[in-house]
Amino acid sequence: MENTDPAPPGRTAFADRALTAYLETLPLPRARLGGGAGDWRVEEVGDGNVNFVYRVLGPSGSVCVKQAPPYVRVAGESWPLTPERVVHEYRALEEHGRAAPGALPAPLHLDRDRHLLVMEYVEDHTVLRHRLGRGALHPGLGEQVGDYLARTLFATSDLALPAADKRALVAEFELNTEMCRIMEDMVFTEIYRDFHRNSWTSPELDAEVAAVRADTCVLIAAARLKDRYLTSRQALLHGDLHTGSVMVGATGSRVFDHEFACFGPMGFDVGGFLAHLLIAYFAADGRRGTPSPPEDEQQAWLLDQVEQTWDVFRERFLALWRSSGRGDSYPAALFADARGAAALEAERGAYLDRVLCDSVGFCGAELMRRLIGFARPADLTGITDPGARAACERAALRLARSLLVDASGHRSVRDVTDAARHARTG
Amino acid sequence: MENTDPAPPGRTAFADRALTAYLETLPLPRARLGGGAGDWRVEEVGDGNVNFVYRVLGPSGSVCVKQAPPYVRVAGESWPLTPERVVHEYRALEEHGRAAPGALPAPLHLDRDRHLLVMEYVEDHTVLRHRLGRGALHPGLGEQVGDYLARTLFATSDLALPAADKRALVAEFELNTEMCRIMEDMVFTEIYRDFHRNSWTSPELDAEVAAVRADTCVLIAAARLKDRYLTSRQALLHGDLHTGSVMVGATGSRVFDHEFACFGPMGFDVGGFLAHLLIAYFAADGRRGTPSPPEDEQQAWLLDQVEQTWDVFRERFLALWRSSGRGDSYPAALFADARGAAALEAERGAYLDRVLCDSVGFCGAELMRRLIGFARPADLTGITDPGARAACERAALRLARSLLVDASGHRSVRDVTDAARHARTG
Repeated sequence: MENTDPAPPGRTAFADRALTAYLETLPLPRARLGGGAGDWRVEEVGDGNVNFVYRVLGPSGSVCVKQAPPYVRVAGESWPLTPERVVHEYRALEEHGRAAPGALPAPLHLDRDRHLLVMEYVEDHTVLRHRLGRGALHPGLGEQVGDYLARTLFATSDLALPAADKRALVAEFELNTEMCRIMEDMVFTEIYRDFHRNSWTSPELDAEVAAVRADTCVLIAAARLKDRYLTSRQALLHGDLHTGSVMVGATGSRVFDHEFACFGPMGFDVGGFLAHLLIAYFAADGRRGTPSPPEDEQQAWLLDQVEQTWDVFRERFLALWRSSGRGDSYPAALFADARGAAALEAERGAYLDRVLCDSVGFCGAELMRRLIGFARPADLTGITDPGARAACERAALRLARSLLVDASGHRSVRDVTDAARHARTG
Repeated sequence: MENTDPAPPGRTAFADRALTAYLETLPLPRARLGGGAGDWRVEEVGDGNVNFVYRVLGPSGSVCVKQAPPYVRVAGESWPLTPERVVHEYRALEEHGRAAPGALPAPLHLDRDRHLLVMEYVEDHTVLRHRLGRGALHPGLGEQVGDYLARTLFATSDLALPAADKRALVAEFELNTEMCRIMEDMVFTEIYRDFHRNSWTSPELDAEVAAVRADTCVLIAAARLKDRYLTSRQALLHGDLHTGSVMVGATGSRVFDHEFACFGPMGFDVGGFLAHLLIAYFAADGRRGTPSPPEDEQQAWLLDQVEQTWDVFRERFLALWRSSGRGDSYPAALFADARGAAALEAERGAYLDRVLCDSVGFCGAELMRRLIGFARPADLTGITDPGARAACERAALRLARSLLVDASGHRSVRDVTDAARHARTG
């Protein structure tokens, strides 16, 4: 779950000395920190709305410790949440980390009894959403996230895995039920009806919200995507990939917070990330206060990153399929001669077209829920002038509807960026 | 797996007295049999190619005992096969039996250690394939199987189940890996290449088989369906529904042999069954020896059953969705007013259209593998004149290709039966 606000002083699960004494018993974290418990310093990390998160610094390096209480930390015991989420997060770090080493924090230790994981602490990186909210760019972003998506989604799909290995992984992640339920409810259901956690810029957008809820084309499209999320087991997803779960720094991008990991349609991850680039695109207008016709430099860059993310994802995914398509799906042995190889290559393109169609739909669904639902992002909530905020949100809502109800009409990523420009200028 | 021949005298896992003594310890089987072990008679059932199957008769009734050795019984230890298959068969009997009581044998006992299940013995019923092979009809067949399909597939889908219950079931059946692997290999892969277990009417169909293997449209369509089998978790399937896994009698139809049960696309079960009605349709010509232009009575009835199976499946499924759509997919609360209800009703039709498209494709794939693969059915192998057999198989191959490569072009079940008539007359 996204952490958009500084955390209030939370209940601390671990006293500092208890934590360092515990870490001293763990080989990998101890090696990374260097020295012994007496040399280590513990800081609680402010972003922990849901979990207890600590940075531990040693002479040689630092580690991050994340402990999941059986509830949402800022809400307390009134909002129970399975602490098993940390197990799935850790296992996803392992599976995705194998596929895309360096693109996420290295997992160092899992303690299933304490519901605690230890991973690399990513130094000198900033949460992407914070950087975008300051109007800054991060060169190479689309290339880096597109590469992460291609590697992780390909490696955990039936194109790469033998069916027996894939089925074992599916069985394991099927148990992340409670976290999946949050997505099922928040993304596809609650925002379309009266629900106490929904919020939007009111009264400015009241009419738009009423119109969305009465729009049967939107409701059917959202329900169809929910059915796809519930029934597809195409690849192991991050499950909540947005600009708050990407850290950027001089050495690239790191993806973290995999606690919603589950098998699902690839487009859920791809479209989710694109939605947050598009939110930043519309939010830039809101920050300036006056919607001004020409895009600013960041906005042009953001749409370029939308295209880059998809284009790099598509090309890397295709390259991986050509070089490493050793899974049980599309068995290479059937397409060994020249005519077979050509037919398979055409089908690879068609497969990616289907992933694009899914991605466009899920992008629309994610935009919608971030505009009028519970977890509104800081890009938008940080815009203090409600009129300016409503204006850019209204434009984003237009895009959300178009992507949601006509996903298959957007046949290339350029159709998506064109639609964003069109929605912005009304 | 289908049993087409009388079983050779197999190794007996249980001596009769050991079996009756064992059954005496089990409350439900004992109650159904009546009396005590001394009153019971054990018969080995001839159809057990894969498992040891016994009928046990008592004063009040009879039970069927099925024990899975860790190999395919007729092949012996040279063909290992997980004995866990019996666990999944039993669990599917429970889940499907709850949805469609009376449509399958009542499960009475599962012994996970002995890899053994006890179920109701279905008296006075004949294996449907045997009856069809004698040119006979079974009035009400399509209605009965269509009803079974609607009830079982609906009840185990996200339309009926809360997501948490469905995910737990998916996790459980994901472990039927080895049996799924047989389907993945036999239906979608092995028949399209040189493989030692493939067989067909040779040399008559050698050219056709070579043409199928060189037909990239067929290969791509089969691979795409395999990907769908590997990635979709739409409902709990029987997994091998054909005319050899349906028993018919005066009181209706009973579906059995659920050892391939897994979550997959609904169309795999629906299309699989339709394929075997169509095999019987073409086989009727082969049995007569001379292909004669007008359909005989059984053939007309068989095509009517194809239409009945689909029509009844569709109508009952829709009725269940309207009355009992309490799952997490397509949440009813979003479609409560009149306009929402009308939109949802239209979407229900679109959902069933997508199931039909899947069913047509899987029907083509199943036809193909039963004509030129390993498990050729008795309908065809029982035709002694190779010329007559090849002629009807050639017609069936034409239909298989048309359904496989143009599944979406068959927009109603009548398009399928028209295509069958067209393929029959060349």
